[in-house]
Amino acid sequence: MQTQIDDAKSKADDFDVRLFRRCVGQFATGVTVITAQVGEDRAGVTANSFSSLSLDPPLVLWSIARTSRSFEAFAGAKHFAINVLGANQLSVSQAFSSKSTDKFEGIRWTPGVTGAPVLHGTVATIECRTESRFDGGDHVIIVGHVENFERFDGDPLLFIQGRYGVAVDHPEVPMSLHGTSGSTSPHADACDIESQLLFRLLFQTFYCMSESFEEQRNAEGMNLILLRVLIGSYEQPGIKVEKLSRFMHITVPDAEDAVEELVERGELGREEDGGLRLTEKGRQRREAIARRENEFERKQLAGMPEGDIAAARRLLTRLIKRNGGDA
Amino acid sequence: MQTQIDDAKSKADDFDVRLFRRCVGQFATGVTVITAQVGEDRAGVTANSFSSLSLDPPLVLWSIARTSRSFEAFAGAKHFAINVLGANQLSVSQAFSSKSTDKFEGIRWTPGVTGAPVLHGTVATIECRTESRFDGGDHVIIVGHVENFERFDGDPLLFIQGRYGVAVDHPEVPMSLHGTSGSTSPHADACDIESQLLFRLLFQTFYCMSESFEEQRNAEGMNLILLRVLIGSYEQPGIKVEKLSRFMHITVPDAEDAVEELVERGELGREEDGGLRLTEKGRQRREAIARRENEFERKQLAGMPEGDIAAARRLLTRLIKRNGGDA
Repeated sequence: MQTQIDDAKSKADDFDVRLFRRCVGQFATGVTVITAQVGEDRAGVTANSFSSLSLDPPLVLWSIARTSRSFEAFAGAKHFAINVLGANQLSVSQAFSSKSTDKFEGIRWTPGVTGAPVLHGTVATIECRTESRFDGGDHVIIVGHVENFERFDGDPLLFIQGRYGVAVDHPEVPMSLHGTSGSTSPHADACDIESQLLFRLLFQTFYCMSESFEEQRNAEGMNLILLRVLIGSYEQPGIKVEKLSRFMHITVPDAEDAVEELVERGELGREEDGGLRLTEKGRQRREAIARRENEFERKQLAGMPEGDIAAARRLLTRLIKRNGGDA
Repeated sequence: MQTQIDDAKSKADDFDVRLFRRCVGQFATGVTVITAQVGEDRAGVTANSFSSLSLDPPLVLWSIARTSRSFEAFAGAKHFAINVLGANQLSVSQAFSSKSTDKFEGIRWTPGVTGAPVLHGTVATIECRTESRFDGGDHVIIVGHVENFERFDGDPLLFIQGRYGVAVDHPEVPMSLHGTSGSTSPHADACDIESQLLFRLLFQTFYCMSESFEEQRNAEGMNLILLRVLIGSYEQPGIKVEKLSRFMHITVPDAEDAVEELVERGELGREEDGGLRLTEKGRQRREAIARRENEFERKQLAGMPEGDIAAARRLLTRLIKRNGGDA
């Protein structure tokens, strides 16, 4: 839903909006920055309302809030460029959804064939001539005729359930040599495990554990956004919402919603300068969650040899370092 | 892009379409099944063109191909329901993008408040009254006024780069207790590794290795869809495109595109009955890729103690079984 990610404020009833946002947040999207050159000025907004529309003629669409500070620019622009962000462009998404007066500061870009700014480092660029605009309530639907497009290798950034993420292969896809060893089909046998790449074994394990872990958390009435706000406020007492949303990779409106909910629960307080600070109840809750995570892991590993666990940790840590990450 | 996933055929130039599909496929989406009850008949189509549009009034949009066999039904329907599919509903997505005459066969559903069928087991339902329709080239944009909505716990199904996937947290999010140990920030230190949950360590490893692995594959000019068609035809010689697309979790149009490309490369042949069979060149290529995967893993693990590798494999296999998967 675009209004989760763009800079427009909603006027609708707060409670419904919060629930509706959570509901439509179940539909995952990529993240785009849409840009235009209008006279001497450049406009750019983060949007996840992009959709391909037609092949013949080639059309795409997106929508912009009437209250967006960039609304006039896009309502008048003859051309625009859709920049599909890569997994490592979180800061770009945040720059263009911020209230900054020069969103292009520090951003690498060049003018595209239509003149609209084309951002560097994305996974796709789609340059358009504005074809039509339609009424869409508090938004306007903008349809563009594709004049030029380019695809670049890389993983896309995702926006899902109010937070940024990345996509991975569906765990049921059989990708190993000789069949179903990468699949969760019940026909897999011991022979398959032997031949399985460690790489795929890692993902299978993560994915299976992740489902069990999620079930636990849902049962506690704790969603990921609430948890991130709780963690961010615990780690950095006095942190402001904008900084917390960058730190925890969620959007400002989602962070605001979660702050409200945690304040209502008596777990979080706002200081005079807007800083967030957990109450004693909030601190206890955060620590209880950490204990539960440890307990979950302890149960998962119960009965497994200590030596195997230590060896697996050593191996994983070395693999992360070898691939340029750090554990 | 909707035409990647729905049942409509494109009339536009093949080469451009293939490139354009690959380009817009960089924008990830969720997967919905949109349903309507029209008189005695039910209509349902798989679509990924859904987008939330407006909060005040609450509007959403999607688009349908004029050539879709369900076009008339939706062009006339006063109401429709958007069913956002969960990660385990791949077969539902495939049922509603098939050419089956009764797409609802074997699907659990009940009529919603507007009368449109509401599918069970989804992660969200959004029931709408048709508000307006706009011209969108070979598609029509349908705007719905939200009459009722409901969210359910669960991971959503993703559609990305022509294949089905699932979302995971952005690897840079700090989620462990005491800060940045879950982050890829350069400030992590040895102490963090000790306190890191094995669960997060697993994901970090998978994600880092995945990036390195992807770089290799891209350098070879092999994308994931081509690879899946190659693997599917290798594992099941004589397989038809429809079955292969189900088996390998890609859509029929994407599978068709990949088949054409592999035929052009001389790696795949079509039999008289439409069955796919790798040529000798194709078989060799599939085996070369498997060797390269093994080589990649061998290099990743070079210098690490054999005992640690075996222990890690044992541990992961046991964890997968403990969580109801099978390795």
